[in-house]
Amino acid sequence: MNLDPDLFPDAPDDDDHFHDECGVFAVYGHPEAANLTYLGLHALQHRGQESAGIATLDGAGKMHLHRQMGLVQDIFSPPVIAGLPGNIAIGHVRYSTAGASHVRNAQPFAVEHGGLGVACAHNGNLTNVEQLKAALDAAGSIFQTSTDTEVFLHLYARAPAGPIVDRVVHALRQTRGAYSVLFLVGDTLIAARDPHGFRPLSLGILNRAHVVASEPTAFDLIAAEFVRDVEPGEVLVIGPDGVRSLRPFDPAPSRFCVFEHVYFARPDSTVNGRAVYVARRRMGEILAAQSPIEADVVIPVPDSGVPAAIGYANASGIPFEMGLIRSHYVGRTFIEPAQSIRHFGVRLKLNPVRQVLQGRRVVVVDDSIVRGTTARKIVKMIRDAGAREVHLRISSPPTRWPCFYGIDTPTRRELIAASHSVDEISRYITADSLSYLSQDGLREAVGYPGGDGFCEACFTGDYPVEIIPAERLAMPRG
Amino acid sequence: MNLDPDLFPDAPDDDDHFHDECGVFAVYGHPEAANLTYLGLHALQHRGQESAGIATLDGAGKMHLHRQMGLVQDIFSPPVIAGLPGNIAIGHVRYSTAGASHVRNAQPFAVEHGGLGVACAHNGNLTNVEQLKAALDAAGSIFQTSTDTEVFLHLYARAPAGPIVDRVVHALRQTRGAYSVLFLVGDTLIAARDPHGFRPLSLGILNRAHVVASEPTAFDLIAAEFVRDVEPGEVLVIGPDGVRSLRPFDPAPSRFCVFEHVYFARPDSTVNGRAVYVARRRMGEILAAQSPIEADVVIPVPDSGVPAAIGYANASGIPFEMGLIRSHYVGRTFIEPAQSIRHFGVRLKLNPVRQVLQGRRVVVVDDSIVRGTTARKIVKMIRDAGAREVHLRISSPPTRWPCFYGIDTPTRRELIAASHSVDEISRYITADSLSYLSQDGLREAVGYPGGDGFCEACFTGDYPVEIIPAERLAMPRG
Amino acid sequence: MNLDPDLFPDAPDDDDHFHDECGVFAVYGHPEAANLTYLGLHALQHRGQESAGIATLDGAGKMHLHRQMGLVQDIFSPPVIAGLPGNIAIGHVRYSTAGASHVRNAQPFAVEHGGLGVACAHNGNLTNVEQLKAALDAAGSIFQTSTDTEVFLHLYARAPAGPIVDRVVHALRQTRGAYSVLFLVGDTLIAARDPHGFRPLSLGILNRAHVVASEPTAFDLIAAEFVRDVEPGEVLVIGPDGVRSLRPFDPAPSRFCVFEHVYFARPDSTVNGRAVYVARRRMGEILAAQSPIEADVVIPVPDSGVPAAIGYANASGIPFEMGLIRSHYVGRTFIEPAQSIRHFGVRLKLNPVRQVLQGRRVVVVDDSIVRGTTARKIVKMIRDAGAREVHLRISSPPTRWPCFYGIDTPTRRELIAASHSVDEISRYITADSLSYLSQDGLREAVGYPGGDGFCEACFTGDYPVEIIPAERLAMPRG
Amino acid sequence: MNLDPDLFPDAPDDDDHFHDECGVFAVYGHPEAANLTYLGLHALQHRGQESAGIATLDGAGKMHLHRQMGLVQDIFSPPVIAGLPGNIAIGHVRYSTAGASHVRNAQPFAVEHGGLGVACAHNGNLTNVEQLKAALDAAGSIFQTSTDTEVFLHLYARAPAGPIVDRVVHALRQTRGAYSVLFLVGDTLIAARDPHGFRPLSLGILNRAHVVASEPTAFDLIAAEFVRDVEPGEVLVIGPDGVRSLRPFDPAPSRFCVFEHVYFARPDSTVNGRAVYVARRRMGEILAAQSPIEADVVIPVPDSGVPAAIGYANASGIPFEMGLIRSHYVGRTFIEPAQSIRHFGVRLKLNPVRQVLQGRRVVVVDDSIVRGTTARKIVKMIRDAGAREVHLRISSPPTRWPCFYGIDTPTRRELIAASHSVDEISRYITADSLSYLSQDGLREAVGYPGGDGFCEACFTGDYPVEIIPAERLAMPRG
Repeated sequence: MNLDPDLFPDAPDDDDHFHDECGVFAVYGHPEAANLTYLGLHALQHRGQESAGIATLDGAGKMHLHRQMGLVQDIFSPPVIAGLPGNIAIGHVRYSTAGASHVRNAQPFAVEHGGLGVACAHNGNLTNVEQLKAALDAAGSIFQTSTDTEVFLHLYARAPAGPIVDRVVHALRQTRGAYSVLFLVGDTLIAARDPHGFRPLSLGILNRAHVVASEPTAFDLIAAEFVRDVEPGEVLVIGPDGVRSLRPFDPAPSRFCVFEHVYFARPDSTVNGRAVYVARRRMGEILAAQSPIEADVVIPVPDSGVPAAIGYANASGIPFEMGLIRSHYVGRTFIEPAQSIRHFGVRLKLNPVRQVLQGRRVVVVDDSIVRGTTARKIVKMIRDAGAREVHLRISSPPTRWPCFYGIDTPTRRELIAASHSVDEISRYITADSLSYLSQDGLREAVGYPGGDGFCEACFTGDYPVEIIPAERLAMPRG
Repeated sequence: MNLDPDLFPDAPDDDDHFHDECGVFAVYGHPEAANLTYLGLHALQHRGQESAGIATLDGAGKMHLHRQMGLVQDIFSPPVIAGLPGNIAIGHVRYSTAGASHVRNAQPFAVEHGGLGVACAHNGNLTNVEQLKAALDAAGSIFQTSTDTEVFLHLYARAPAGPIVDRVVHALRQTRGAYSVLFLVGDTLIAARDPHGFRPLSLGILNRAHVVASEPTAFDLIAAEFVRDVEPGEVLVIGPDGVRSLRPFDPAPSRFCVFEHVYFARPDSTVNGRAVYVARRRMGEILAAQSPIEADVVIPVPDSGVPAAIGYANASGIPFEMGLIRSHYVGRTFIEPAQSIRHFGVRLKLNPVRQVLQGRRVVVVDDSIVRGTTARKIVKMIRDAGAREVHLRISSPPTRWPCFYGIDTPTRRELIAASHSVDEISRYITADSLSYLSQDGLREAVGYPGGDGFCEACFTGDYPVEIIPAERLAMPRG
Repeated sequence: MNLDPDLFPDAPDDDDHFHDECGVFAVYGHPEAANLTYLGLHALQHRGQESAGIATLDGAGKMHLHRQMGLVQDIFSPPVIAGLPGNIAIGHVRYSTAGASHVRNAQPFAVEHGGLGVACAHNGNLTNVEQLKAALDAAGSIFQTSTDTEVFLHLYARAPAGPIVDRVVHALRQTRGAYSVLFLVGDTLIAARDPHGFRPLSLGILNRAHVVASEPTAFDLIAAEFVRDVEPGEVLVIGPDGVRSLRPFDPAPSRFCVFEHVYFARPDSTVNGRAVYVARRRMGEILAAQSPIEADVVIPVPDSGVPAAIGYANASGIPFEMGLIRSHYVGRTFIEPAQSIRHFGVRLKLNPVRQVLQGRRVVVVDDSIVRGTTARKIVKMIRDAGAREVHLRISSPPTRWPCFYGIDTPTRRELIAASHSVDEISRYITADSLSYLSQDGLREAVGYPGGDGFCEACFTGDYPVEIIPAERLAMPRG
Repeated sequence: MNLDPDLFPDAPDDDDHFHDECGVFAVYGHPEAANLTYLGLHALQHRGQESAGIATLDGAGKMHLHRQMGLVQDIFSPPVIAGLPGNIAIGHVRYSTAGASHVRNAQPFAVEHGGLGVACAHNGNLTNVEQLKAALDAAGSIFQTSTDTEVFLHLYARAPAGPIVDRVVHALRQTRGAYSVLFLVGDTLIAARDPHGFRPLSLGILNRAHVVASEPTAFDLIAAEFVRDVEPGEVLVIGPDGVRSLRPFDPAPSRFCVFEHVYFARPDSTVNGRAVYVARRRMGEILAAQSPIEADVVIPVPDSGVPAAIGYANASGIPFEMGLIRSHYVGRTFIEPAQSIRHFGVRLKLNPVRQVLQGRRVVVVDDSIVRGTTARKIVKMIRDAGAREVHLRISSPPTRWPCFYGIDTPTRRELIAASHSVDEISRYITADSLSYLSQDGLREAVGYPGGDGFCEACFTGDYPVEIIPAERLAMPRG
């Protein structure tokens, strides 16, 4: 029995990528806090297109909240922003999994407790949320959503009496898993990252205002300066007296999500100290060295495959071309037409440039393969456009395991690489050859040749935070 | 500090009436449960036009919920109803106070607890809600709304382990004030009325399905049969095995809201065993006897004043006419035009029939006067239409005290009868004479000449359930 | 072949009345012209609920137009009115026939011709519109709508060069049938009524501004004064130099629509010099004299039957009661629920008051019977509520013929009185007795005992303006 | 005096490009005609984002029409498509000039004439439209829009009696300027291109159905095959008996718009027999030869500058990189925030990749400069990201003259190259150097080294069809 009938959506995402589930943004101490947060969320839109929300605290201590389904630019019209006064704001964008869309699950989540408004915005995924919910339920808590964020707030509310920061730390200590989380409690903004630092979180400054964002590219848009990443296990407390840093957790090895480099983060971002564009181009260069092929042209699957394709072309000396054109008018709301003509599929998004492909031996560079269905369509499309050979190069290792730390992935059953060899996948997608970047190659590209400091569970199944076995086959909560 | 900036709206309701704050409806054991609930809520629309909601339990034990701002017929389109499967449903309509409109406060309120969906819909007002919230907050509960309903659910969740019904009774026992409340917990429907029975609640039957409604008129629309009123202090438990009746509270004197007879209930309803139309007509007859006047015509303020005006006309022998015409296209969303021409006011709703009024001595019958502003406009409108004399007759005693049991009333400061004599009010509204029905007259009309069994606090200030003094001047929560 | 697939809607109107097809309103010379027109249209909302529109002329000679489906109060929000600047405005409300709803057919209709904006708003129906369209089409005109209004504008544009007024008169002269029509051409407002004067049109004054409306009740709302009716065959020209009256047509006998008195006009209106409320009450009085019956109670079918029922009760001495309660939350958009429970029908609008009806001999007064289906349901409902006898009294003669002059009526086939005797109808609707007001009775009630000056074609089939035979069985255009 | 207050919008387009004003698509003889047209329009979305529309003819000879403001995928939901039955469809997308947005101007435009539905969809611009409108107006035509399309239909309606095709040709013969136009009259589809062939138009085939589109890339999406371009001056008549080709106009030199190659057409299209991607890449190659520079990196202004930048990089041997990232969540509806923080400007669309630019000598390739304001912002952004030098290369000659043949361009006053030398422009935009592709270079790239067959008026002011002098400084109609 469950309140949310859409908890386990089964409709596969039609662009066949893993997807980040959230982005967060905060401003402390600026009269245009909601406005800036809206711009920051706009820059983080790629991390979540289902819903967005902003909570602000006004000068009189009142909290204001607006959450809605849709894109940031459609939600935050001037009247909506005018209804979000105050110098402090936290914001959130949420990913649209195929079915679980409901404004009830939109963030920030806000409640009243102890005479204060308390708001929370979370990017990540707690692995012990079922146990925590069961214990809270037994103790008389009631749940309105299926979000981790509500659990955070229940834990906060039940923390021993004491200063706000202690209560937040008490709540965080009980959780396991991945979180880059923001709390707005009274006039205090708290930004925390789990001890392994799965998901990114950065601190910036805009004149005298402090800003926090999932990726520092969001600072560019508002002309704020990047200060530094919030560190794994760090709790930043931003209040009227400035910023304090706490380290309330036991030390743990850094486990930053390597897929942020492969696909999630924007190419103009720098995460975990490494420029994303440069890392992706480097993946392509190493891939060219590891899996060379005689060919006439290198083309990316746009837009995400572009930097790696440039790297592959540069390293191999094979000319780079845009052999596939992506339509930018395809939104998430696109409704395909009647069954009788619905075989068009991926053509709505991608179309080949025949003159680039005809009679050529083509290297196609993409960042990953999830189910293989889209890759298969793309290979067919390129071949139909006249390509003589189609060689697919993937700028990351095979994705064999679902993620439980804040990424929307299908179950193992659906991950083609979980049950098929590279050769089998190559045959399935009808490519002339298929190669993946090696794990060592990826490590080198993201700047940790020693192989430490990253979470690679989706490639290896080696989960840094224990997952309850039964869950390993199920979809995480989001 | 408060989450809801609109908690204490100050904009007076423009039709200057007391207003019921809610209506509830439930179906147990019918395959069209949501459909029937939608029709039932439509019949109860007069009890609340702000928002409406339905929660259903489907055969697989899943709860489905839809709540929205607006009128029942605009909310429950066929696709919405199709999304509410199941044999059990509870529904709610909520009154639109001027400012506190927010879908967050719409009902039913639904949460998950103990592996079950728990939904609650409430008509009434708890008088000890602040104390309960403070205690729950201190124990770690978090609040998302400013509704009594959320308090009910917190109390339920914190009740000692035990059968569902015991937990609900445990929750109810801690509350004070007025409630006609529905709980849907798992496959059990519980309908309870507070020991004083302030607000109405009736049981009906439709083939083998059980139905519950705030007023039995809602049964008419779905061709269900009225069985009996739920009694004050009674808890009805409707489950797979039928209906059980519990009496878990200490006995208390019946205190049914007399204003349901005066204005709230539909004229085609029967509440507390008395047909509303007949009671209102009788109010007019007694009023004619108590406050006779020589006049040429009796007119009602439509629509609520019609039965009493008919009674007054019958008893006095003065002809009944419709001297004021009410526009039925004026909704709550009506936006008045620019300041420069906004003196039209009440004309948007009412317009006089000059030929009925010109040169006549007119008796105008209305059910109550709250602030006096509307009455003053009506008297002026009738006089401007050529009436020679205007005598206002009110079919209830002067309303001098705010209600704390589920009715939206202004503070004492705004109640004109709280600080002015009948003569002063008559002068303010510029009537040639003004008379109210006496308290004894009202008692006789509603069929309890002995004067017992009803709550008359709005006339007398004699509150059956103690109100904390500080609150007596404030607006109740809604 | 036709542009409009909904030209001949076949869904019967669910409240089984004839319906007016339009209302018009204009303001000349007031800085709040759009605002006042919006209020005026609101007062005329009963004449058309499908769509509404306003065209204004601003100080720079630009025309502004807004038309939309829906109710006046939902369409004309402050921003919409702000987009309609100027001192001159014409407005229109249009009736919602079941299927032909399309914003393309909304009025005013506006075009550009001769360097001027030309707008037109029409209440009525042209009988030679097919011939005019055929001739215009042959001459190279193109049609975007199925409205008479577009025909008016084509005729205007093709009139011989000359002053604006001459061109408008030239256009009007070519038309046959019913029109109360407004033209806004440059800074001139022209209000014209066809020679027979089928539909009403009145002139009023507000300070120094002139106002025109389908019914003078619209003046009340804006505190304008009624000046006089525009006369049959009169063309009023309102310009910067004041009001001129022209009589450009051959004299014709007055043929005012008697059904405006029976049902269409608001009860607080005065049309054709006679107060509608008084006429209706008189219909009831005469009906009581013509068709007396021994009974215990007289009840109206609300709201339209109320004045006649009061008249019947007064004249017969039988007490008047509101035995049927009308829900005012049923809008035109009401969607009935699933087939399995849709037999509720008229209950959504009307509900009986059992205590008024039980064991009684009941006289029910309504204004007309169209198809008989609703009357049958009402009789059954009253009998089910316990009435001993049900006697239906209709305050107009049997409606046997469709209207071709601006009223939405079904074809003869659907008019029950066209093919059935009063006795047969009485049996069909299961009444104990049924009587209609006689034609002479109606003439007396509306103040023309001589029987001249009115159009009674719907009762007699005696059409004042010739109808092409083929059309007599079809639905008029709207 | 004008009906349309927004005829001459003054707000500059924020991405500072010329813009195509329309795209057209048609299907003849397919049961899913509306569905396929919707997909075709989706593929042509880049040619117009303001509004879209589809008209269909059903089997019973009825025309159905749906037009709406917005993007194709938001407009044509399944119910809307279901309301467009039939085997023949024509569709249109219209460009959103800053202010003239009104659904009244959306296309196809449809009327009824001669007992037939007549619909028209037009890409282009008539240069003698004012004279035509004046003459039609004098002859009694009325105008509801400010579009050329309505003029086409008036001319058709006034053509001498005769076969449909003759009437269409008669209408076309009276017009001057640019048109690729579709007529749907009865069951005949007519596709015509003006004698100079300014705008593209192609014929395709899908099984036995005929399809017509502004660009053949639209055929890809529906898996139709490209047959050939409709030729300049050709009129294709598609009817039940197949396709006929007429040449009813005097021969005229081909004047295909060269800017379709530079910017308008999709890179995956082939127009005028030349693959657009290849032409653009060649522009970059020639530009590299004509204007070499020592640099470290070549970057495009995405997305339109990508092929030329690849060409420039290939030809110069300087590495190609994506140094600017484009946000794909910026729609046309984006509302910039409050004044106080609105200096962000172009950052919402483009963001630099610092690691690609820092310390580098950067060649930036774009397709054109209109006002120079955006180029200036981009140069600054690249320099702020640390570039040592910024050299701007434009893959077309300076645009010095407005277009009157269907492209939305600013007046000469606003075109920076109309009044400034290349050096002055270079200083204004603060580039280290600026070069444009020469006219000869462009001719070579698009495959007509002889320099004939294209319209180059925006570079040369040499207008193939005479423009009335007064109009040369004004904005064309759209």
